[in-house]
Amino acid sequence: MLWAVSIAIIGGTGDEGFGLALRLSRAGEEVVIGSRSEERGQAAADRAREILGLGSGSGGRGEISGAANQEAAAGCDVVFVTVPYAGQAEIYRSIKQSFRPGALVCDTTTPLATAVGGRPWEVLRPWAGSASEQAKALLPSGLRLVAGFHTVSAEQLQDVERPVEGDVLLCGADASAKAEVGALIEMIPNLRWVDAGSLSMARIVEPLTALMVSINRNYRISDAGVAITGRKEWGQAPTRAAET
Amino acid sequence: MLWAVSIAIIGGTGDEGFGLALRLSRAGEEVVIGSRSEERGQAAADRAREILGLGSGSGGRGEISGAANQEAAAGCDVVFVTVPYAGQAEIYRSIKQSFRPGALVCDTTTPLATAVGGRPWEVLRPWAGSASEQAKALLPSGLRLVAGFHTVSAEQLQDVERPVEGDVLLCGADASAKAEVGALIEMIPNLRWVDAGSLSMARIVEPLTALMVSINRNYRISDAGVAITGRKEWGQAPTRAAET
Repeated sequence: MLWAVSIAIIGGTGDEGFGLALRLSRAGEEVVIGSRSEERGQAAADRAREILGLGSGSGGRGEISGAANQEAAAGCDVVFVTVPYAGQAEIYRSIKQSFRPGALVCDTTTPLATAVGGRPWEVLRPWAGSASEQAKALLPSGLRLVAGFHTVSAEQLQDVERPVEGDVLLCGADASAKAEVGALIEMIPNLRWVDAGSLSMARIVEPLTALMVSINRNYRISDAGVAITGRKEWGQAPTRAAET
Repeated sequence: MLWAVSIAIIGGTGDEGFGLALRLSRAGEEVVIGSRSEERGQAAADRAREILGLGSGSGGRGEISGAANQEAAAGCDVVFVTVPYAGQAEIYRSIKQSFRPGALVCDTTTPLATAVGGRPWEVLRPWAGSASEQAKALLPSGLRLVAGFHTVSAEQLQDVERPVEGDVLLCGADASAKAEVGALIEMIPNLRWVDAGSLSMARIVEPLTALMVSINRNYRISDAGVAITGRKEWGQAPTRAAET
């Protein structure tokens, strides 16, 4: 059963993860919503199916199911990890033995200061440099890690009838991994992706979540995002493509 | 003579400052290009006049002159400081006695790692939090400080026939100071500004220069920029405006 599943969303009961689950299912991908509890994962999947008007049966493209995080990670080749920074290390430790060899992991964590009681427009400086570099330090070797989605609001993702404004900035060492995540991004209407460089660039990109919070607060809006200007098409970087 | 001057560009012989001088002169503002040496400031002003096709005479709107940094700062109510991070503290110490009371200072410094022999897509973490907070610590009280222009490429600014793509993210404690700098920004064709929040948000905004360098490098381009999505108009923030 799990062999058919393609994309796991660890922490998929949270706003960002749930929005991603909706968008990727709508794009025709099979999605497993992972949660610490299997029941909560399944409840979120039920809710997603209702929002998308999907039947509760199995087998179709775009199917959404729920599972415990470990089971979700074990069943998928692509794993999005969408958890708050306070729980990120614990979640990675709990699932790191479950990943398939060569799995593609996309981490969306931002080290917001809310993890320690601070404000959501402030960030912490992780010892590893960024939350995604912390994830890399916790993951077994052989997995392919990409960081992204820090500037795409959960509200926009969940508002499935509206196209998504803005670009996803992807960071990572592996150009083909970025292109694979990029291909999923391009299945979401209007959404583009930009190769922001190496994983360490997440030190700059992750804090943009806090910048979006600050701008949302200043303008009393909820869906500030980032678009990169200067080029018509923003897919795979030509120089990196040449390297692979 | 100097009383008529409105905008000083400290470090205006550098690429970013020179581009700003061209754009602000073209918008009809009077600009003084400051340099450590008066002669180099004047030579840059001559070059700017030639690019813009201005006469060498005085008195017209849009006039560009050159001066030593101290003299430029003393003669203007608005002072842009566009210097490399390695020289930023020294420059502020050299001009801090020269500012007019209540002067508006716009700092464009990014703490690129090139200051210590590193790469231009890497940044340092200033002890004060950001380069602009370092500037604040060095300035006399009573000056109004705004940080901005970190994501607008020098190439774009200097290419005066082309409209500038992207938004200037302004950080600072003083909403009216941001709006004043914003009004200058809006005189540059197509350029918009966004209130990014307090001066400490420069910790997030300044490193975007390095992100632009990384993206330029990945895509073999030279004018990557940032635009904020989610709102049609991006002038003065409504909540901050209500405070003033």
